[in-house]
Amino acid sequence: MKAERIPEATVTRLSVYSRHLQQLEDNGIARVSSQEIAEMVDGSSAQVRKDLAYFGEFGTRGVGYDVRLLNRNLMKILGLEKGRTAIIVGAGRLGKALTLYNGFEQRGFNIMGIFDKDMSKVGGQVGKLTVSPMYKLDEFVKSNNVQIGVITVPGFAAQETVDMLTRAGIKAVLNFAPVSVMVPPDIRCRNVDLAVNMEVLSFYMGLEESKETKKSGAKKN
Amino acid sequence: MKAERIPEATVTRLSVYSRHLQQLEDNGIARVSSQEIAEMVDGSSAQVRKDLAYFGEFGTRGVGYDVRLLNRNLMKILGLEKGRTAIIVGAGRLGKALTLYNGFEQRGFNIMGIFDKDMSKVGGQVGKLTVSPMYKLDEFVKSNNVQIGVITVPGFAAQETVDMLTRAGIKAVLNFAPVSVMVPPDIRCRNVDLAVNMEVLSFYMGLEESKETKKSGAKKN
Repeated sequence: MKAERIPEATVTRLSVYSRHLQQLEDNGIARVSSQEIAEMVDGSSAQVRKDLAYFGEFGTRGVGYDVRLLNRNLMKILGLEKGRTAIIVGAGRLGKALTLYNGFEQRGFNIMGIFDKDMSKVGGQVGKLTVSPMYKLDEFVKSNNVQIGVITVPGFAAQETVDMLTRAGIKAVLNFAPVSVMVPPDIRCRNVDLAVNMEVLSFYMGLEESKETKKSGAKKN
Repeated sequence: MKAERIPEATVTRLSVYSRHLQQLEDNGIARVSSQEIAEMVDGSSAQVRKDLAYFGEFGTRGVGYDVRLLNRNLMKILGLEKGRTAIIVGAGRLGKALTLYNGFEQRGFNIMGIFDKDMSKVGGQVGKLTVSPMYKLDEFVKSNNVQIGVITVPGFAAQETVDMLTRAGIKAVLNFAPVSVMVPPDIRCRNVDLAVNMEVLSFYMGLEESKETKKSGAKKN
């Protein structure tokens, strides 16, 4: 496996496949075909097979995939079998919502702490966690071996927050702040912009709208 | 332009380009090259040019792009120039956080209402909005011409919520519930799974970890 060459889009799809396999598994379904996986994710079966082929042979022709086994393999490929540790920086509404978001824990991510520099937020309770001050971040990351820093601070504070996290030894950053941040080359960073999803929807709505305009224009003529 | 054939990945990137162009514009920068855009998004300049070429000629060889003009064009392509209307269904923590998320309004999305079927939440204040009961949803969507429904209800309630929204005449659904939902063929739907981003990070962290293991293994031999 040439892991370095695996497209990020493939990795994203593996994560989505795994989630659907988990649903099948929870529903007691034992086998699945690439066509059925494709239908669940609105993709093609060729794409599913190509994505999986980066990592080896998982299915049997004419028989399909063992749901449980394939999911275990995907979880392992995604590095989820051991669990991952994370903290949230920024105890605003989004930070709190993410701290309490079930979806992370379900997939093996342990949100270990939440930090804020606003002393009026420090000490506040977010589920099981208490908001900690920023000066405790460095030691917390080191002593708990925290791997992922999730940033939900305002844009102007994002870069300094990333710098603190990388100095503390974090391995990856998930940035929800509405600006791009720079990280050292050995640190992985993903910028999540919630509006991007809305804009993709808006684009396709625009296509439908222009079709409708054409149709109604044609009727008038 | 064969808009139907434009890959969703291209549309996603256009949205990201536009956001970066907005930052340049806000900083008073007038011109930008495809290489500079590529650097801002960790992509290649060939990819940038290919993405833009679906929609026409925007740049001048050797001179680059007019930042403001290119951004206006991208906003128009994304259907953002007129503004879009949306509602949130589910007034839990994530629903509230999204209602108050600045990033939507900045990009022309007007969150007009927030709904919940839990009567203990109905009447509560979320920023300027008051949580409305579900029985008001249909009329609200129709009379306000709401285009996008953002779903932040629990998984078991997601499909019925989508059905209500599509019956009311919504054009697109952004689904944050941790299950897939089915929509009629003329309705656009995007499932947002916040854990996917974490899993992609986890995958690349795994690659780094296996490199380190190999290195330390080599040292021992």
